[in-house]
Amino acid sequence: MFHETSLRVRYAETDKMGIVHHSNHIIWWEMARTALLRDIGLPYSELEARGVACPVIEIHCRYRHPAHFEDELVVRTTIMEVSPVKIRFAYEIINPRTGTVVATGESLHAFTDMVTGKPTRLNKSHASVWQTLLSGGKAYFMESQG
Amino acid sequence: MFHETSLRVRYAETDKMGIVHHSNHIIWWEMARTALLRDIGLPYSELEARGVACPVIEIHCRYRHPAHFEDELVVRTTIMEVSPVKIRFAYEIINPRTGTVVATGESLHAFTDMVTGKPTRLNKSHASVWQTLLSGGKAYFMESQG
Amino acid sequence: MFHETSLRVRYAETDKMGIVHHSNHIIWWEMARTALLRDIGLPYSELEARGVACPVIEIHCRYRHPAHFEDELVVRTTIMEVSPVKIRFAYEIINPRTGTVVATGESLHAFTDMVTGKPTRLNKSHASVWQTLLSGGKAYFMESQG
Amino acid sequence: MFHETSLRVRYAETDKMGIVHHSNHIIWWEMARTALLRDIGLPYSELEARGVACPVIEIHCRYRHPAHFEDELVVRTTIMEVSPVKIRFAYEIINPRTGTVVATGESLHAFTDMVTGKPTRLNKSHASVWQTLLSGGKAYFMESQG
Repeated sequence: MFHETSLRVRYAETDKMGIVHHSNHIIWWEMARTALLRDIGLPYSELEARGVACPVIEIHCRYRHPAHFEDELVVRTTIMEVSPVKIRFAYEIINPRTGTVVATGESLHAFTDMVTGKPTRLNKSHASVWQTLLSGGKAYFMESQG
Repeated sequence: MFHETSLRVRYAETDKMGIVHHSNHIIWWEMARTALLRDIGLPYSELEARGVACPVIEIHCRYRHPAHFEDELVVRTTIMEVSPVKIRFAYEIINPRTGTVVATGESLHAFTDMVTGKPTRLNKSHASVWQTLLSGGKAYFMESQG
Repeated sequence: MFHETSLRVRYAETDKMGIVHHSNHIIWWEMARTALLRDIGLPYSELEARGVACPVIEIHCRYRHPAHFEDELVVRTTIMEVSPVKIRFAYEIINPRTGTVVATGESLHAFTDMVTGKPTRLNKSHASVWQTLLSGGKAYFMESQG
Repeated sequence: MFHETSLRVRYAETDKMGIVHHSNHIIWWEMARTALLRDIGLPYSELEARGVACPVIEIHCRYRHPAHFEDELVVRTTIMEVSPVKIRFAYEIINPRTGTVVATGESLHAFTDMVTGKPTRLNKSHASVWQTLLSGGKAYFMESQG
């Protein structure tokens, strides 16, 4: 199953080619994964308040079809992989009106300690966060993992 | 009466002070006024398709209280002033949960011809757009004008 | 006298109108005033390290001529007003090649304590910062103050 | 050989984690490759004026070390691969002061016709652009290609 987040393209997100600038997809992914976390009871602001950060280690995006100002897009997010030290999300941005896939991609994140900046093992350092992530997140695991 | 647009603060909109970077309010205003125009039957993408641009001539923003990541904010927009050559919007961004006013401000826009870039008199050059703006927009005129 | 900061317009800073999106001027001002502060021996990162923040209270921008991708622009910055509790900068963004004024504006900032977020009187709380600001900054005071 | 572009981190490019938001690297790459093209006599604004666009098809970024406000960074750019239908750039962002690699990555672009939006074979459609790209660009080919 995937999680869905809707957004409407802002004028400021376009560029002189008349379409959405490609850097915005990275920000939309962030909206989508923080919405997913919020929906499973782990708001990212609360994660940080508990001392856990989840910095981006790697991103990979493939652009398929341009998006335009005022388009209503949907970001479909799944959890590709999760372990006590990292989490990988996959994204598909679609335009429901036209039925096109705008872009697909993945982001890989480490779990780190907000204070030291060092990697942390979530199951040891924040066991309740880890349990909530596993139990709530499984609804959004990719089928191969489900 | 004011028009309302909701938004949730994105992580990318924060800065190292831990709060929303002040440049984002300008982009939120744009979201809000394009939503207002869309709601009265004048989507900005359609305005442009008809050859009318509405570039920003002046902005003025007063920041009152910081906004934070994941806050749900509301932009209340009114039309302060409209004539065949210009339109002025006023904005109040509030945080409904805390009851605070995040910021207030205004933006002034000219009506211009997309092709020549020159000012245009909307009632002459695009009479039906002008009529729709007046009839639909009056719901959002400031009281002093209403 | 004014302080000068150069920049070249990025593609991502344009919008579908084919020109620079108006929100970028606010970010360019920030670059310009942090460059001014750095040049007088008060890097903003160091100010924050000493516990002083300088949040934006108000901005006012008038857009005169559009700027385009790859334009080399200059931001001319002056200190309009400074006191132990606030500082006001004025900006003029010009395109030296065309001789046009792209935009003019001002920003008003409070001095606050990074920890409490409360206003601070810089001459009391951080006397050496205050002295450096006065002595270094006076080169960039507006003539009326010089 | 690589092409070098310098930049200084803007305050607006940071996020509440206190470091540069990861979406900015994508924009810095764009600055870097447009600077490379300008330096070999093919300003991207001129490419577009001649009817050639070069949209991003794919990006891949690996984040190694955080960058901070006011850091002076260098983007080292090489041309990994070029053909009449596509071009692939590789980037390494370094912090010369600390000697750290901030991030590495690649972007893949198609050559398209600005009017139709369709892929174009640059050697056929714009032979002089193609010749300039090959002759000027070879200074920045990766060693394996040089």
